[in-house]
Amino acid sequence: MGGIIDGCPSGISLDIAQIQADLNKRKPGQNNLVSERKESDEIQILSGLFEGKTTGTPIGFTIQNKDHLSADYSHLKEAYRPSHADFTYEKKYGIRDYRGGGRSSARETVCRVVAGSIAKQILNKLGVQFSTYVKQIGGIELSSNVFFKQDAIEASLLRCPDPSISEQMESAILECKAEGDTLGGIIQCVIVGVPAGLGEPVFDKLHADLGKAMLSINAVKGFEYGSGFSSVKMKGSEHNDSFESSGATKTNFSGGVQGGISNGMPIVFRVAFKPVATLMKSQETINNKGEEILLEGKGRHDVCVVPRAVPIVEAMAALTILDHYLRQKANQL
Amino acid sequence: MGGIIDGCPSGISLDIAQIQADLNKRKPGQNNLVSERKESDEIQILSGLFEGKTTGTPIGFTIQNKDHLSADYSHLKEAYRPSHADFTYEKKYGIRDYRGGGRSSARETVCRVVAGSIAKQILNKLGVQFSTYVKQIGGIELSSNVFFKQDAIEASLLRCPDPSISEQMESAILECKAEGDTLGGIIQCVIVGVPAGLGEPVFDKLHADLGKAMLSINAVKGFEYGSGFSSVKMKGSEHNDSFESSGATKTNFSGGVQGGISNGMPIVFRVAFKPVATLMKSQETINNKGEEILLEGKGRHDVCVVPRAVPIVEAMAALTILDHYLRQKANQL
Amino acid sequence: MGGIIDGCPSGISLDIAQIQADLNKRKPGQNNLVSERKESDEIQILSGLFEGKTTGTPIGFTIQNKDHLSADYSHLKEAYRPSHADFTYEKKYGIRDYRGGGRSSARETVCRVVAGSIAKQILNKLGVQFSTYVKQIGGIELSSNVFFKQDAIEASLLRCPDPSISEQMESAILECKAEGDTLGGIIQCVIVGVPAGLGEPVFDKLHADLGKAMLSINAVKGFEYGSGFSSVKMKGSEHNDSFESSGATKTNFSGGVQGGISNGMPIVFRVAFKPVATLMKSQETINNKGEEILLEGKGRHDVCVVPRAVPIVEAMAALTILDHYLRQKANQL
Amino acid sequence: MGGIIDGCPSGISLDIAQIQADLNKRKPGQNNLVSERKESDEIQILSGLFEGKTTGTPIGFTIQNKDHLSADYSHLKEAYRPSHADFTYEKKYGIRDYRGGGRSSARETVCRVVAGSIAKQILNKLGVQFSTYVKQIGGIELSSNVFFKQDAIEASLLRCPDPSISEQMESAILECKAEGDTLGGIIQCVIVGVPAGLGEPVFDKLHADLGKAMLSINAVKGFEYGSGFSSVKMKGSEHNDSFESSGATKTNFSGGVQGGISNGMPIVFRVAFKPVATLMKSQETINNKGEEILLEGKGRHDVCVVPRAVPIVEAMAALTILDHYLRQKANQL
Repeated sequence: MGGIIDGCPSGISLDIAQIQADLNKRKPGQNNLVSERKESDEIQILSGLFEGKTTGTPIGFTIQNKDHLSADYSHLKEAYRPSHADFTYEKKYGIRDYRGGGRSSARETVCRVVAGSIAKQILNKLGVQFSTYVKQIGGIELSSNVFFKQDAIEASLLRCPDPSISEQMESAILECKAEGDTLGGIIQCVIVGVPAGLGEPVFDKLHADLGKAMLSINAVKGFEYGSGFSSVKMKGSEHNDSFESSGATKTNFSGGVQGGISNGMPIVFRVAFKPVATLMKSQETINNKGEEILLEGKGRHDVCVVPRAVPIVEAMAALTILDHYLRQKANQL
Repeated sequence: MGGIIDGCPSGISLDIAQIQADLNKRKPGQNNLVSERKESDEIQILSGLFEGKTTGTPIGFTIQNKDHLSADYSHLKEAYRPSHADFTYEKKYGIRDYRGGGRSSARETVCRVVAGSIAKQILNKLGVQFSTYVKQIGGIELSSNVFFKQDAIEASLLRCPDPSISEQMESAILECKAEGDTLGGIIQCVIVGVPAGLGEPVFDKLHADLGKAMLSINAVKGFEYGSGFSSVKMKGSEHNDSFESSGATKTNFSGGVQGGISNGMPIVFRVAFKPVATLMKSQETINNKGEEILLEGKGRHDVCVVPRAVPIVEAMAALTILDHYLRQKANQL
Repeated sequence: MGGIIDGCPSGISLDIAQIQADLNKRKPGQNNLVSERKESDEIQILSGLFEGKTTGTPIGFTIQNKDHLSADYSHLKEAYRPSHADFTYEKKYGIRDYRGGGRSSARETVCRVVAGSIAKQILNKLGVQFSTYVKQIGGIELSSNVFFKQDAIEASLLRCPDPSISEQMESAILECKAEGDTLGGIIQCVIVGVPAGLGEPVFDKLHADLGKAMLSINAVKGFEYGSGFSSVKMKGSEHNDSFESSGATKTNFSGGVQGGISNGMPIVFRVAFKPVATLMKSQETINNKGEEILLEGKGRHDVCVVPRAVPIVEAMAALTILDHYLRQKANQL
Repeated sequence: MGGIIDGCPSGISLDIAQIQADLNKRKPGQNNLVSERKESDEIQILSGLFEGKTTGTPIGFTIQNKDHLSADYSHLKEAYRPSHADFTYEKKYGIRDYRGGGRSSARETVCRVVAGSIAKQILNKLGVQFSTYVKQIGGIELSSNVFFKQDAIEASLLRCPDPSISEQMESAILECKAEGDTLGGIIQCVIVGVPAGLGEPVFDKLHADLGKAMLSINAVKGFEYGSGFSSVKMKGSEHNDSFESSGATKTNFSGGVQGGISNGMPIVFRVAFKPVATLMKSQETINNKGEEILLEGKGRHDVCVVPRAVPIVEAMAALTILDHYLRQKANQL
């Protein structure tokens, strides 16, 4: 896997170890709650850096996976796996490379983590901080909407910063794993320090671009910010965020964005992930001749990808915020 | 108000009366459940049509509002209304034209309805049909996810196709109106006839572009498609959509999109609207000097904009689907 | 005619009279050397200005032409005029509105002049100055490449700052007018004060974007910058621009751009215009049935549009430079 | 070096040997008239192909240069070479990687040749054919504007299809080489079989995009199409291209493009290249402290890059034409 990042400002010192640390949060094999597949995912920067600083030229990189086993995909040659992209890619392109999922595989998100990690380093220098964590797995939910620190999040194997809820989630995953089934969940992201004024009127509202970025991640089914879907049951007089004299608001149902533009309050949003489509138990499906076939459950797959999706959500958020930060610079003389 | 539509294919016969009909669904003053403000919203096409057909050149149009009263906005000159864009626009641009909301006003959506209505006429010729309706207002919800016909939807003043639920919604709105308060809601859109193969891998997934389009509409707080947020509590074995031998799926938790690409099944999504921020009762707020002031509730505002947002949601959906339809044409030799 | 300018920074004081002055340089009827058609071309700003300053929202404008005669185009209904866009538009769109040239008419450039005039006002505040003038008409040429002042340029009816050459050009035009024929020419643009560092590597080089901008103007057949086509006959040792210790160069064969990026020296380029295709004498041509027809020369057309194209060239140059100026701001943290 | 091609239609059989053949036309070391530096430039396709056909996913590729000597660039660490991008890149980015030219080096054009070669293979299947050749080197010129066949072009070491003129060009190059100096030249491109209707009105005219594409190539100083700069001395009655009853034109001063849209006639354009800035003789220049230094002429550089630029011009032309071909598909229902 590899990628090219264009448009990164010059003269920025990059911490490669930090990029690797973000990649490690995403990779499989971290513990027995996620896929036990081993992928080393080692970042190598090919261009765009000179004596540790960005040069303004594109940053090319590859991610080597030294432990990759050359998998046997031949049983998938003609099969359409349920709720995968096999059928739709074949309809779109009229041809399908069955050897691995290509761009429909969640493996492509490794590049997003690299780019997002660089964006995050730049935003950190500007005073922006991220807190991204697992809010829900299956029916077990953390009700808080606050900014949790990194060590509280990373203390949990599932990146849920409440130890007792994290434990319940672990049990749910192990139980589901025994059944050969899978679980979905919700990730929450809280961003502090974003200056007021980011986002563009009408079509490129800040939350609209955040929403698109999140919905582009594999397995995402929904996005909401601030009060989100729960706003529907509130009255306007409850929902309006009153101002303090400083310009801050007493509540933050707006989730840090008003009229599509950041207001300086924490940006808060949630992303819903469906349960993984690849099961460890057999499923009936069809092949590309329309014949019914049995798809056996095999391989080393995740029961629940949500904990490993935390760095992906954070990466896409950082890229979106930094894009709007730079764009706002070009709005001003 | 006016707009310019570029990229519309040539040689298409347009029905202007149909555009006007869509505009009429959006305009205020339709009945006592929405704003009693009168706006005539008459469409006039300035360019891009010759003998009733599109010429391939940009379609310029204006929407005249003959009943517009020159409103007195002077009381808003220095006020930051809660949960409006006054504060953020001033932070972004360092200058604010207080006379009307400009691009932050929902009035701009009138142009989206015109463009979407044209897109819908083109899609109708290609066999695509839309069913967009109110699924929830406040706490009152229609649980169905099916395709309702236009006459069933339009039989309800609130565009909720179940008469008994529509009636309950009316009561809720009238009750809330008496309090000077406001309500939010959910719109559902079901689209049939979209061919398989629309949507682009990785970043421009079909549902990601639909999500961005919806989140760009004023007052929208969340977007979900197919099973959406409810997928979180399902197991993979329940959630996977099994194929029939025809390539259709037995269930449609995918909402018509798999791997970001349409699969030929109905596209289903939901959009959450917050309660309107402009109240008929007084609110405390601040002005641009940071002083506390009292904002009086006056004007002729909506208790609930959701029924009038139905044509806007449908318009943005049509624009997104047609864009991807034309884009897919450029993918093929 | 009208247009919308998006992306203009906020808080800029605009001088509307200056925009009108630029429009007046482009309009027909200025003297007997150009078309005697009268067009008033009055600018009216519809949006984006508040108390004389830009607000950061789109600047909408119209240009009213009070003297427009509703022309009779019926003789052109089926004709393909030689070296016009009649034939190609019909092939592209399958339909053609014969009543005026639409987007293929040079009348659309009036909008470019408005937008460019605004860009120029902003650039002037940043220390950038333009000198755009007629360098050649037919076979009569001004050999200089220097920066001429506005009053020297405007002292000539043909915008050629050398009075004796301007006089020869006048004679050539009047002679050609008597024949019912037309002439082409070359415009030169010299821009001083552009900071070093504008332009993007590889595809969006500064001179490549200037070239595209110029080639998009009606009747343009060629573009060259710095030494241009004449560089072909020079040796490298003659052509290389030696540095002074200040970083300035002793010669400027580079035309102010090296490696696609401005170097702080004057930007110099030339644009070639073909002779006008609309003649005052009859021409043989075909109609859309492939039949030979005679096209009569009538109307009030220009013998040579080059003097009136000076503000268009300058406008497109200003837009290109300001775009790259703002883009460079987004390259830097 | 490597690149990624996105947007290539699926299902196209690619001839890799043909891509390699185009790369070989560009590479140094072909004969004693160009740089004697050896670069093997071997293409390797990494993705986007399955069983010899494009899959619609991005085509990733690398070009290995097995003979690359790790050059010593330390003498260039602080020097600003005359008429190179050293000075401007440092001004733009505030940092410069002196080890090789990076994106300002003409070596990046190797990727353009790969992408263009693929585009050309697709266009060939659609009936489009290219004839690109050297029209002028220094003062020696081939006056013809016709379509020469590939074997006539490749019969000349300098890609000038007239043997006697090619011989004169060879002498001029050898003479200049002896002086340690360099020469410029002109490449002409003639494209037949382009369907009428490609190109977009106003800003993205076909010749404007061709012009930008050509001006983005290293060392290019000018672009003209059809009659180009010579049109300036013609009268309208001479210059207008009369129609035959078939819709073809008797002359082709328009160069195959009218009103920015292809008319089905051969597309003809010319590109001017300055003499190479890197000399084999010493030059005075400055370093980044503003001190005068002497730059020695060393390395294995070209006296004249124009023959090696032929495949680059053809590649950029093919990419531009295919982009407009696919874009026109999205204009039509």
